[in-house]
Amino acid sequence: MQATQPGRGPRVRHAQRSICPVACSLDILGDRWTLLLIRDLLLGKSRYGEFLASAEGIPTNILAERLKRLEQAGIITSTPYGNHARRKEYRLTQAGEALRPIVKAMRDWGLRQFPGTRAPD
Amino acid sequence: MQATQPGRGPRVRHAQRSICPVACSLDILGDRWTLLLIRDLLLGKSRYGEFLASAEGIPTNILAERLKRLEQAGIITSTPYGNHARRKEYRLTQAGEALRPIVKAMRDWGLRQFPGTRAPD
Repeated sequence: MQATQPGRGPRVRHAQRSICPVACSLDILGDRWTLLLIRDLLLGKSRYGEFLASAEGIPTNILAERLKRLEQAGIITSTPYGNHARRKEYRLTQAGEALRPIVKAMRDWGLRQFPGTRAPD
Repeated sequence: MQATQPGRGPRVRHAQRSICPVACSLDILGDRWTLLLIRDLLLGKSRYGEFLASAEGIPTNILAERLKRLEQAGIITSTPYGNHARRKEYRLTQAGEALRPIVKAMRDWGLRQFPGTRAPD
């Protein structure tokens, strides 16, 4: 019962630097890779190999660590697929889906500031 | 003349990982401190000591490095003040002001996800 609040979505778990909601968000999202992984998940990607194949070339150790950390934080869930127990599909939770406005705001800023960038299809 | 485009604001300078605007934004903004500094600037703070005084306790070496990097990227400008040539006031450029929707989206997500957080006045 502690995990959700009516109408507010699941609570995200982490250690806090301050009571500022921006700081708390950055405690989880503040690095060069996490929101790219969220971008891929929002675009419908769900498998390890799909994340690895993205243009930025995320290193495998960083990818594995971020997936683990996002699952612990309650932002993604994983379910096994196929014959190999180690293969998993990753999906955004409600809290993860709620990151869409952040990714969109970054996309919009980037499109204006960096000539030659293009939003993914 | 290369620095601005009509209606698009100054171009931000950096090395790119891909043509994705989210990735380009994260190349500059993707760490635990940069957007907190932007938050403080959006709230009207402009001096080194004001940034240091924020609740998260940014280390001085990180603060100095981020201010330098943001100025090089065209997101802030600095002007000397008072009798000490080394004392500077920092202000957001047009490209920096345009980060407001990103900070707001992080605030909104944080307020929903982290019980007990409170938006700054």
